[in-house]
Amino acid sequence: MKKILFLIFIPLFSTAQTNDAAFIKKISDEILVNGKAYDWLYHLTKKIGHRLSGSTAYNQASAWGEKTMKEAGADKVIMQECKVPHWNRGNGDFAKVVQVNSKKEVIELNALALGNSNGGSANAEVIVIQNFEELEKRKDEVKGKIVFYNYGFNQSFVETFKAYGDAGKYRQMGASRAAKYGAVACLIRSLSGSTDNFPHTGAMRYNDSFPKIPALALGLKDADRLNELASKNKIIVDLETHGKMFEDAIAHNVIGELKGSEFPNEYITVGGHLDSWDVGEGAHDDGAGCVQTMEVLRVLKTLNYTPKRTLRFVLFANEENGLRGGNVYATKALENNEQHIFALESDAGGFTPRGFTFKASEAQLQKIQTWKHLLAPYGADKLEMGGGGADIGPLNEKLKTVLAGFRPDGQRYFDFHHTANDVFESVNRRELLLGAVNMAILIYLVDQFGL
Amino acid sequence: MKKILFLIFIPLFSTAQTNDAAFIKKISDEILVNGKAYDWLYHLTKKIGHRLSGSTAYNQASAWGEKTMKEAGADKVIMQECKVPHWNRGNGDFAKVVQVNSKKEVIELNALALGNSNGGSANAEVIVIQNFEELEKRKDEVKGKIVFYNYGFNQSFVETFKAYGDAGKYRQMGASRAAKYGAVACLIRSLSGSTDNFPHTGAMRYNDSFPKIPALALGLKDADRLNELASKNKIIVDLETHGKMFEDAIAHNVIGELKGSEFPNEYITVGGHLDSWDVGEGAHDDGAGCVQTMEVLRVLKTLNYTPKRTLRFVLFANEENGLRGGNVYATKALENNEQHIFALESDAGGFTPRGFTFKASEAQLQKIQTWKHLLAPYGADKLEMGGGGADIGPLNEKLKTVLAGFRPDGQRYFDFHHTANDVFESVNRRELLLGAVNMAILIYLVDQFGL
Repeated sequence: MKKILFLIFIPLFSTAQTNDAAFIKKISDEILVNGKAYDWLYHLTKKIGHRLSGSTAYNQASAWGEKTMKEAGADKVIMQECKVPHWNRGNGDFAKVVQVNSKKEVIELNALALGNSNGGSANAEVIVIQNFEELEKRKDEVKGKIVFYNYGFNQSFVETFKAYGDAGKYRQMGASRAAKYGAVACLIRSLSGSTDNFPHTGAMRYNDSFPKIPALALGLKDADRLNELASKNKIIVDLETHGKMFEDAIAHNVIGELKGSEFPNEYITVGGHLDSWDVGEGAHDDGAGCVQTMEVLRVLKTLNYTPKRTLRFVLFANEENGLRGGNVYATKALENNEQHIFALESDAGGFTPRGFTFKASEAQLQKIQTWKHLLAPYGADKLEMGGGGADIGPLNEKLKTVLAGFRPDGQRYFDFHHTANDVFESVNRRELLLGAVNMAILIYLVDQFGL
Repeated sequence: MKKILFLIFIPLFSTAQTNDAAFIKKISDEILVNGKAYDWLYHLTKKIGHRLSGSTAYNQASAWGEKTMKEAGADKVIMQECKVPHWNRGNGDFAKVVQVNSKKEVIELNALALGNSNGGSANAEVIVIQNFEELEKRKDEVKGKIVFYNYGFNQSFVETFKAYGDAGKYRQMGASRAAKYGAVACLIRSLSGSTDNFPHTGAMRYNDSFPKIPALALGLKDADRLNELASKNKIIVDLETHGKMFEDAIAHNVIGELKGSEFPNEYITVGGHLDSWDVGEGAHDDGAGCVQTMEVLRVLKTLNYTPKRTLRFVLFANEENGLRGGNVYATKALENNEQHIFALESDAGGFTPRGFTFKASEAQLQKIQTWKHLLAPYGADKLEMGGGGADIGPLNEKLKTVLAGFRPDGQRYFDFHHTANDVFESVNRRELLLGAVNMAILIYLVDQFGL
């Protein structure tokens, strides 16, 4: 009996593999030849532009997302309401050197207030601090000064995201750690290893125990310049920011759905986040992930694919400064007793595909790794443990959903991240589309074979 | 006895692997943190610029290469003379629509004469030909007309180099194939899948049996436009080119050398080509390969590495339109009874590393693949059969040298290849340096363990 079963199963398995490879080739051909993601990205970036939570542009973007999901073939589109923080930078951030030793001298610095920071001004001496260890050692020198954290990206990390993880705390916590010792303002070296001078904004958080001092990021060339100047001279910097947190605003997750034919209460989510920082056009972060998500929907509909499970294509609200969209999505899923077996996020830029990381059991990862040969021809065949994505994190916390993060090549990401330079022109059409190809393949395989 | 040997060998092997990984990490750290390749590329592209064989700029570039090889630490630098073709485009290539049906109407086309083509002019009706099969079918309609080959890059190929290989014959042979049937000029759709309108030049070759008609490449947007116009209307195009082949010029391969300590007559070559087309700055093609080659030299010297074999770092002359540099290099190697065991070329752009291809025996490839885990952390771990590079090809033909080609990600390459857009700004510093890291690792491993 066992032998007979064996003889029956082998051919079935082989056929499935051949059919899978053939369908996957169709996915790739359809996206690379007829893909809409790049045109959609053009609209999102050039016609709508950046779209911070609480802005009018965000609402324009979510309305456009609803329309585009329908065009791409969603059975239905749900506009899922959530309250989001509403921070506004105001106008006229600046920082400039105004005095070098006893000499008046104006040197403009390319600076941008950090997200969520309060407006304020300072005119004070700069103290350069390379890291928090140095801050602790020199805490008695900080009072009344502007603390400039010059902690750089560690260029020896091959993975740029590791450098970001390593340096991130200076943006997040630097201001309050400095305010604790009496600093009047905070400057940070932008979280980047690029060769240009664009300042990089991004979320910071105040510790309510200390004064909420202004905080700005400097472009790397100006960070180098200030570091050099201030390590040899007494430098006075004049700076001003106008950030303000308003009352929470109403925003929406945009959810396109394809109903499952066999297991309609098993959900597979693929998404990116629709909000962006308030500079540039949010092209790589995360317009790319949004249009790739809709491309996965479009290609499956175009190829007349009938999913076994219910597929959800989600443009999440408010990843950048609150994660409210992701939290509401998971909360509602729990309330509705939906069984979310898998979620994939694309939020690392529209670059050439290299792999996926997973938050899964060893057994699940091993199953996924049996698909490696099906992904390899399309580039994303590094399949390793690692995080999924910020927006889908709550699904894992609340519903134990297996998570995946799309991992394109990261060498250029932090040239653009949270800058005025994150524009449509920085995205290559084929790299963007190939990302969608690999995402569609993974969604297809999980839908076919479960986890 | 066997058992004892086994016990002895295992620890030795483990130690070697650990030491290799540690030295490789040093290579990576040194290049990513202190690498000079990007600064060298700035000089080559911005201070010297494009450098077609026979141009003054080529000689400036080779003199700079000699100086830079010395600075990077070469034991000696050989300037190896070779005669190279000397083609000059002249000034004022153009192609424009001048009549649509009976109406005079001027539409400028973004056009560039193909390399090696003869100057000439035409004012004639356009016939759009999608491929050579169609040419044969419609050969009686061609006489007196301008043949426009609109054969596009096949976007469904994941590897862009496959699309280039597929479409390349229209640039190489299109003019003479059309002239055979009486065409007065030839236009081709540029060999690219980009979203812009830059025309791409590159080598063509006349068949001496037919008239040497002018030949130009069109930018893709203008190719689309002309295709649409001419498939519905009678279109007259006016065009002019001024290309001319002069007498051969003298040029030099620039060869830096590190003498081998154990096997000085076993040579390992790593190189790129120093010449470029005569538009843009030859940044990806192949300034990148040249500066990566010198970076490999620099890092090995900086880390005080004593090679077992003799290492050669070569900036080849005349890859683009003659391959004279590569031929002279192999001919001299044969004359001198040098034993060239391995050669690696970087000529696919300064993009993020993905792997190497090899021209080797199965056994050699298997040996190389045992190093996969040492390359994987740095990105170039796809180790497959395939070509090496044009300049090193003659080494394999004449001396049976094992060849390798560095294979960075190719999605963006044909956005820049042979265009005015192939400039310094199109190269990302970290992608360029990571390429050099992986090249240095491979050279190190071949030097240590042979093939």
